[in-house]
Amino acid sequence: MANQNLIPVIVSGAAGKMGREVVKAVAQAPDMSLMGAIDTSPEHQGKDAGELAGLSEPLEVPITNQLEPMLGYVAGERHMQPGVMVDFTHPDAVYDNVRSAIAYGICPVVGTTGLSPEQIEDLASFADKASTGCLLIPNFSIGMVLLQQAAVTASQYFDHVEIIELHHNQKADAPSGTAIQTAQMLAEMGKTFNSAIVKETEKLPGARGSVADEGIRIHSIRLPGLIAHQEVIFGAPGQIYTLRHDTSDRSAYMPGVLLAIRKVLQLKSLVYGLEKIL
Amino acid sequence: MANQNLIPVIVSGAAGKMGREVVKAVAQAPDMSLMGAIDTSPEHQGKDAGELAGLSEPLEVPITNQLEPMLGYVAGERHMQPGVMVDFTHPDAVYDNVRSAIAYGICPVVGTTGLSPEQIEDLASFADKASTGCLLIPNFSIGMVLLQQAAVTASQYFDHVEIIELHHNQKADAPSGTAIQTAQMLAEMGKTFNSAIVKETEKLPGARGSVADEGIRIHSIRLPGLIAHQEVIFGAPGQIYTLRHDTSDRSAYMPGVLLAIRKVLQLKSLVYGLEKIL
Amino acid sequence: MANQNLIPVIVSGAAGKMGREVVKAVAQAPDMSLMGAIDTSPEHQGKDAGELAGLSEPLEVPITNQLEPMLGYVAGERHMQPGVMVDFTHPDAVYDNVRSAIAYGICPVVGTTGLSPEQIEDLASFADKASTGCLLIPNFSIGMVLLQQAAVTASQYFDHVEIIELHHNQKADAPSGTAIQTAQMLAEMGKTFNSAIVKETEKLPGARGSVADEGIRIHSIRLPGLIAHQEVIFGAPGQIYTLRHDTSDRSAYMPGVLLAIRKVLQLKSLVYGLEKIL
Amino acid sequence: MANQNLIPVIVSGAAGKMGREVVKAVAQAPDMSLMGAIDTSPEHQGKDAGELAGLSEPLEVPITNQLEPMLGYVAGERHMQPGVMVDFTHPDAVYDNVRSAIAYGICPVVGTTGLSPEQIEDLASFADKASTGCLLIPNFSIGMVLLQQAAVTASQYFDHVEIIELHHNQKADAPSGTAIQTAQMLAEMGKTFNSAIVKETEKLPGARGSVADEGIRIHSIRLPGLIAHQEVIFGAPGQIYTLRHDTSDRSAYMPGVLLAIRKVLQLKSLVYGLEKIL
Repeated sequence: MANQNLIPVIVSGAAGKMGREVVKAVAQAPDMSLMGAIDTSPEHQGKDAGELAGLSEPLEVPITNQLEPMLGYVAGERHMQPGVMVDFTHPDAVYDNVRSAIAYGICPVVGTTGLSPEQIEDLASFADKASTGCLLIPNFSIGMVLLQQAAVTASQYFDHVEIIELHHNQKADAPSGTAIQTAQMLAEMGKTFNSAIVKETEKLPGARGSVADEGIRIHSIRLPGLIAHQEVIFGAPGQIYTLRHDTSDRSAYMPGVLLAIRKVLQLKSLVYGLEKIL
Repeated sequence: MANQNLIPVIVSGAAGKMGREVVKAVAQAPDMSLMGAIDTSPEHQGKDAGELAGLSEPLEVPITNQLEPMLGYVAGERHMQPGVMVDFTHPDAVYDNVRSAIAYGICPVVGTTGLSPEQIEDLASFADKASTGCLLIPNFSIGMVLLQQAAVTASQYFDHVEIIELHHNQKADAPSGTAIQTAQMLAEMGKTFNSAIVKETEKLPGARGSVADEGIRIHSIRLPGLIAHQEVIFGAPGQIYTLRHDTSDRSAYMPGVLLAIRKVLQLKSLVYGLEKIL
Repeated sequence: MANQNLIPVIVSGAAGKMGREVVKAVAQAPDMSLMGAIDTSPEHQGKDAGELAGLSEPLEVPITNQLEPMLGYVAGERHMQPGVMVDFTHPDAVYDNVRSAIAYGICPVVGTTGLSPEQIEDLASFADKASTGCLLIPNFSIGMVLLQQAAVTASQYFDHVEIIELHHNQKADAPSGTAIQTAQMLAEMGKTFNSAIVKETEKLPGARGSVADEGIRIHSIRLPGLIAHQEVIFGAPGQIYTLRHDTSDRSAYMPGVLLAIRKVLQLKSLVYGLEKIL
Repeated sequence: MANQNLIPVIVSGAAGKMGREVVKAVAQAPDMSLMGAIDTSPEHQGKDAGELAGLSEPLEVPITNQLEPMLGYVAGERHMQPGVMVDFTHPDAVYDNVRSAIAYGICPVVGTTGLSPEQIEDLASFADKASTGCLLIPNFSIGMVLLQQAAVTASQYFDHVEIIELHHNQKADAPSGTAIQTAQMLAEMGKTFNSAIVKETEKLPGARGSVADEGIRIHSIRLPGLIAHQEVIFGAPGQIYTLRHDTSDRSAYMPGVLLAIRKVLQLKSLVYGLEKIL
């Protein structure tokens, strides 16, 4: 019988890259217990989730593709705390997974992206009715959220700002979603940035980068050897204030995932974004 | 007769490097009027404060060494707003200047450092009795205060942090006062940073820098070509979060000086630090 | 009578920003003697070149607008070394100044830009016939030339490179001339850089910057508080190699100017670029 | 029968972290053939070297602990090019491995550190007598060697330089061996760097970092989230020139390993350092 002081956690998408990292982090968290590891990929069925995640000891939690029975089992463990389902699956699967979890009273923590606005609205009203916490978190990086919040504060005092984001050259789209999101957060201040004091000329088109909302510039660098980096540079006469975040590894997201698992149990509705629980 | 909607400002130390910059900034501020420019250096008596500050037109405000009469004159201009005295003088002069200003009901904004704790306490009680605002501001850089506040927030989520400060090689002391102050602000979180996970060995003494409160490391770089820079680097598995501030010019401090002039009029006592009025 | 071991130097454009800096640097060089200070601006005629340059003592060299007589005077000082004329004037004036100097056997060191290819060719043949050294140097920054040379070496081993140049927002054109020049030097390697391994999509136009020769990307940042900075970033699997140069002050160019003055005397023809004399 | 145009390569230490990376790189190099994979660790005997290295297909090269027979076998393949042995083993094993390889006419490429000066001298004379190329390479990072060479060039023109090296907090010693090596290379210029122009005071001991040869300062940062980074910062009035190298992954060393394999075959004696073959 599982320790009743521990938070029971089901990982959905447990054989994926993020899923394996979550299995490892949950297994090592002193206040959590990995109850189930769900994955639909045929080649991993029955494997030990811990060994798949690279732990030296097996966790005695086999990978299965049966989410509903697992939700039912955890929901039935009434001597324990209410459970949490962490979902890193696919845009096609996530809506159904989240609905099922809420139906069983299991709180979802969702890292999978691709839910439509309608689906999000629908899940929000479903969570509301069930008084069940649900967290949709597009970016689990606490460091990046801190950068974005510090940038929003700084944008009250600086009228000039440009963003540089740097990623490996396997990334196809530019600017990165996170850089666009940072620009949007700054743009919500309701002022226009980077008023020109001279007439700018691009001798080579694109030199001055892209223009997001309210005049904020974003420049995207792509090189092998880079991983994932974002720099927000504020300028004023005589000074430059720079915020930079570097991610080198998926382990960067685990403090955010563990925080979300702990916080979702205190919620009664759907909440969007890691910044809401910091 | 001066415009009654403008804040009358006296600059004390008007011929010094910071004083000249303040003269220029006040002259260009749409809501302020430079009433007096005080400096004790004999060679500048009678010169126009604006021309000395590098403005193309004279301000018709001559440098004088008579602070008290000027305070009395501004205090007597009852049709105007109450006045402000900005002080960038010497550790030896600043206490008397501030006392005099408060005695005349003129609000001091003080950038001069070197007041002893007893002197500060004394001025605080004097300002209190007179219900007069007084701002003591060791660092007028809004960007640096934003960096320090963002660092304090980040220190709740990161357990590892080191500070690098970089200055020109004319700076004799290391670490810089501002870097030590940043470390103290982080140390007030009440946790110990940088717990070692291996036994560290310095093959060359000093390699790992200096240790400020609560284990925070500070490294000081001194090179010609540098001006004044501070970097706070937070680390956690898989991520680095860096805050950096670069000052290239005294103009960097002027937004902070103008903000302090506007805010000190709303105060009724002595307040220490730019962060209190952001 | 001037010291016969010193290099006699005439500064043309002595009242301009660069000219004043050159006056100061030459006055302080132990192996040079400032013989003349030429400037056509009416308001500076007769002023002492040293005082205008901010030296505490006058140099007893008055600003004059008479270049030819000064060239003749220095050329006649046969007991001294041959003379050098440093020119920081205007595109309209530089050609005639250089021709005159060569005619008098005075070696020109030219920082003024704007000579046409035909003018340069013409001056080259004129210098050749006169067996007189002449240096045309668009960028006197030794640090920047070192950066460019190190970048050329690195480009033999790296196949991916992007350039970021950052300048104050008073700069109208982008990319900077120096960044374009760096890209051209790398492009001369004769290989194509930055072969894409995915199909890139710009969600905001311009995000990926401008494309110079051979696929090299250049990104231009413009902010108040910046001065003049260039970063060349090479990437390969598992590593990034970055070269960065920051200029904060015109004094950065003076070691290059003094080096050019010493080297031009050893030349017998026109040479283009600081890199040729390093 | 192996393709006679390929370089036959034996990897010694093939089950270690670097060894596996070398197995992968050699297997993917179009001009090489992995002939043997040696490792003494009992648990890996008989496993396929390619699968152990993470390749999707087996290489049909089993791990064995028999170095000498493998050397003899490759030496006997007279229809092929002469062979190369890449050694990433232990300080205790490397001397014997290298001697054996040379005895068989197989050229060693050695990444294992810890050979004593006497051992190196001994191997050098042994390689000399056998007219066999042998490369001892403490650092296979081409990017880092380029940085060091660019720094040596810059040190002719700059008199002030400090080094910052940043590593994960599992690294016990400070400064890093590579940073000390960089400082030594600059010190060999034969001039003293960083002459003080003011009397420096450390308010906190260690703030100004460690002092290597000829006054060069080294500062060591240790944080989780960092990997391996080195920055060499040159300063002069008005300018800063910075060289930075970031390693995120062992794959960074593979271009250097492959280059060494190709070059060692052209050598007739022992050569130390990657810079000698660039």
